[in-house]
Amino acid sequence: MELLGLLHLDELSHGLANLSMFPYFDIAHYVVSVMALREQPGALEVSRVSPLACWFSSMLFCFGGAVLSGIMLAEPPVAPLSNSGNILLASVTWYLVFYCPMDLVYSCAALLPLRLLLAGMKEVTRTWKVLGGVAQAHGKYKDSLLVMVANGWAKGAGGGLLRNFEQLVRGVWKPETNELLKMSYPTKVTLMGAVLFALQHGHYLPLQKHHLMLIYTVFTVVSKSRMMLTGSTSSPFAAIESAIYKTLFAGHAPYRALPSEGNKACIDNGTSDDTTSTQDFSKNGPAGSYASGSPVGGHRGPIKAKEESEESEKAETASCKKSD
Amino acid sequence: MELLGLLHLDELSHGLANLSMFPYFDIAHYVVSVMALREQPGALEVSRVSPLACWFSSMLFCFGGAVLSGIMLAEPPVAPLSNSGNILLASVTWYLVFYCPMDLVYSCAALLPLRLLLAGMKEVTRTWKVLGGVAQAHGKYKDSLLVMVANGWAKGAGGGLLRNFEQLVRGVWKPETNELLKMSYPTKVTLMGAVLFALQHGHYLPLQKHHLMLIYTVFTVVSKSRMMLTGSTSSPFAAIESAIYKTLFAGHAPYRALPSEGNKACIDNGTSDDTTSTQDFSKNGPAGSYASGSPVGGHRGPIKAKEESEESEKAETASCKKSD
Amino acid sequence: MELLGLLHLDELSHGLANLSMFPYFDIAHYVVSVMALREQPGALEVSRVSPLACWFSSMLFCFGGAVLSGIMLAEPPVAPLSNSGNILLASVTWYLVFYCPMDLVYSCAALLPLRLLLAGMKEVTRTWKVLGGVAQAHGKYKDSLLVMVANGWAKGAGGGLLRNFEQLVRGVWKPETNELLKMSYPTKVTLMGAVLFALQHGHYLPLQKHHLMLIYTVFTVVSKSRMMLTGSTSSPFAAIESAIYKTLFAGHAPYRALPSEGNKACIDNGTSDDTTSTQDFSKNGPAGSYASGSPVGGHRGPIKAKEESEESEKAETASCKKSD
Repeated sequence: MELLGLLHLDELSHGLANLSMFPYFDIAHYVVSVMALREQPGALEVSRVSPLACWFSSMLFCFGGAVLSGIMLAEPPVAPLSNSGNILLASVTWYLVFYCPMDLVYSCAALLPLRLLLAGMKEVTRTWKVLGGVAQAHGKYKDSLLVMVANGWAKGAGGGLLRNFEQLVRGVWKPETNELLKMSYPTKVTLMGAVLFALQHGHYLPLQKHHLMLIYTVFTVVSKSRMMLTGSTSSPFAAIESAIYKTLFAGHAPYRALPSEGNKACIDNGTSDDTTSTQDFSKNGPAGSYASGSPVGGHRGPIKAKEESEESEKAETASCKKSD
Repeated sequence: MELLGLLHLDELSHGLANLSMFPYFDIAHYVVSVMALREQPGALEVSRVSPLACWFSSMLFCFGGAVLSGIMLAEPPVAPLSNSGNILLASVTWYLVFYCPMDLVYSCAALLPLRLLLAGMKEVTRTWKVLGGVAQAHGKYKDSLLVMVANGWAKGAGGGLLRNFEQLVRGVWKPETNELLKMSYPTKVTLMGAVLFALQHGHYLPLQKHHLMLIYTVFTVVSKSRMMLTGSTSSPFAAIESAIYKTLFAGHAPYRALPSEGNKACIDNGTSDDTTSTQDFSKNGPAGSYASGSPVGGHRGPIKAKEESEESEKAETASCKKSD
Repeated sequence: MELLGLLHLDELSHGLANLSMFPYFDIAHYVVSVMALREQPGALEVSRVSPLACWFSSMLFCFGGAVLSGIMLAEPPVAPLSNSGNILLASVTWYLVFYCPMDLVYSCAALLPLRLLLAGMKEVTRTWKVLGGVAQAHGKYKDSLLVMVANGWAKGAGGGLLRNFEQLVRGVWKPETNELLKMSYPTKVTLMGAVLFALQHGHYLPLQKHHLMLIYTVFTVVSKSRMMLTGSTSSPFAAIESAIYKTLFAGHAPYRALPSEGNKACIDNGTSDDTTSTQDFSKNGPAGSYASGSPVGGHRGPIKAKEESEESEKAETASCKKSD
């Protein structure tokens, strides 16, 4: 703390902690979220066929955290609708990103410098949302670290965790993957933040709240910018994850025969952007392949038909990318 | 208002506003709802295989609005079960429609004149449900028009909006369509009602509540009767919808190449009965076709495999219709 | 009651009623639940690929009742997370069953005598959970038998009733079956218990609570042990169910032509263990076959394509079993 004080960082962290998210940071969050939706396969068609479904999907991208947290704590999930200012901003953003004449808004926002700025600002809102979720849970369940972590995570990464149901609104159903089976980078960084802020709330961390806010915000912004600039998908957590995985979850007899590359690949690649959370789940065989029901059974590869459908999906994605 | 007063309509509207829905109008609602369930593909098989699943589905058709509204406002969704009188009526209706010896009840109720009367009475209950939803939301969120609209809509058209999950109870899963992607007529008319009653509650409409109730009720009853008598599926909103669509949602560059007929067809045909909400979603390419993920990408037709499965579904539907 | 008093059963029932579930009976419940998850097809793969998804699935198996009951009564579904002691026990159990070196814990617990003991203890917890659910609903809705039954059932058999969504966490989606369409034995016995305890709460049964607890507990333990020892899947309710079905639900004209064996088979086979709730639903044609949309239409067999997919699924299951 002394060091932070010396470097004038204490004032900076106080300044950050008093920053208001409304309206600029919120707008950045809405623009990035709605653009992520627009870049989902099939989203443009939906925006033509049913503007209402498209609007509802956008609202789930923008306010998914509040909705999920509301469900978890038995508070009205429609509450975000009652916040007129934010809903209006998000709706205008949705309209401009999807239906602006000449597609001006999307084309501008998709330029790298602006996109980088918006993504950075969106990462700042993450800190506020996670902290809000942790504090809200603390108000209801004083001593429960787990509830704080869960609610902070839900509030910060709700859109991702609700992905399957958001897709259902658009007529897309991909049960073979979800954010728990294959976490994307934003979901991971939010979980880490929720754990840190919950520990801080429970006084298990020798840090003050505004210092943690500064550190976490800088980490998320830098990390996101690096990933966008280098196009890298390697997670900053890959090494830690791999170590935890090897220590805790790899010592099980029936699977010793498994090639360890398989597991490693899964961990190393478990990092992606918001928009890639719809990736298929083909490494190590999909959970939905119904293989090996035996208690001490061996490992079976993914079933043929499944594999084929995944192949065709990949081909699709590839052809989509070509048409860019 | 002067005119209404002159025509003795003021007294009529007061009389209507004081009308009790229980038991006759409620019974009509239950009969029409359970008959709509029975006419769903596969529902009769389910009624043989699992009466409990069939009963639960029927209750979702009858009380879906209350369930959905409960979830949205964080009030117990089991609350309808605590209303013994209504549950008993709905259960007796369910039993008689599905299991009456000689199928007497269903055969009678399916006769056009009786069906027309029941459908008319059901439309009257819609007014009460929408109004109840708007008033309930007004009690919780004083100034939020959007919450009032959402809750009024949920209460009035909950069965339709929950359709995907109601189907799941019966072992049917059709993710490619839902009431937001392709609204049926009842869902549309309920949304319109929710908007009107919410505006009236917020004093944005120069109308008194009982006058609006009369006007809306007459509109829904007349409109439904016309549709049943003429067998027409053209929505009374088609012109307005088309105008809104063309003004707001059609000015987007990447899609200029799209044949405008496609979009128009989608709008013009977007009108259907309760029972047709299970229609497939083949116009304009399904949302689930994963086409065109490119930001400025062109339009791609639906993917082959998908198309085939839709063809076979259509063939099925056709063969079902032949067997009538 | 005199007789029970004479046989010293009154003291026994009082002793049982004062028994604490924590920690031994709770542990037995967690072990049996997590083992049931581990024996689901594909669960082991998920435990390798995503320990977090596996943990979340396990928690739904262990605390599904509390989660479902929370949703139904609009109380926070995260509440179980706030109970640190139980969550810790369940998490340790999950870790040991899935990741114990040499697979020691699972191998031991899978031995018949220990498995029998654990299953018996788990059945004891059922009584407490059902009773807790009924009492909780009684606190909220004084006079509503149905809400008491629903909440007792949800609390006691929540894991089973949430099965579709628990599977979704693991990337598995089987919409064609659920616990309402094809009830497993535990779901049935829990429903029966919920009805009995709700009647007792409403003073419709000439029994005291602790006597009913004793009778119900003995019945469930004996019945479960008998099924495990004989490997029989015939439900103790088969005769009653068949009688109710024939009396109430078989008198419907359009289906008179149906071979009565079909219906009978469905009823007689409607008994299974926890782990078999993932069975496919091929008897009598699946509900998802979209057959016979006609109001008075005839019976159609399952559609070809569907049938084929079921065949392939069966073949899969068969090959899994061979690899045991």
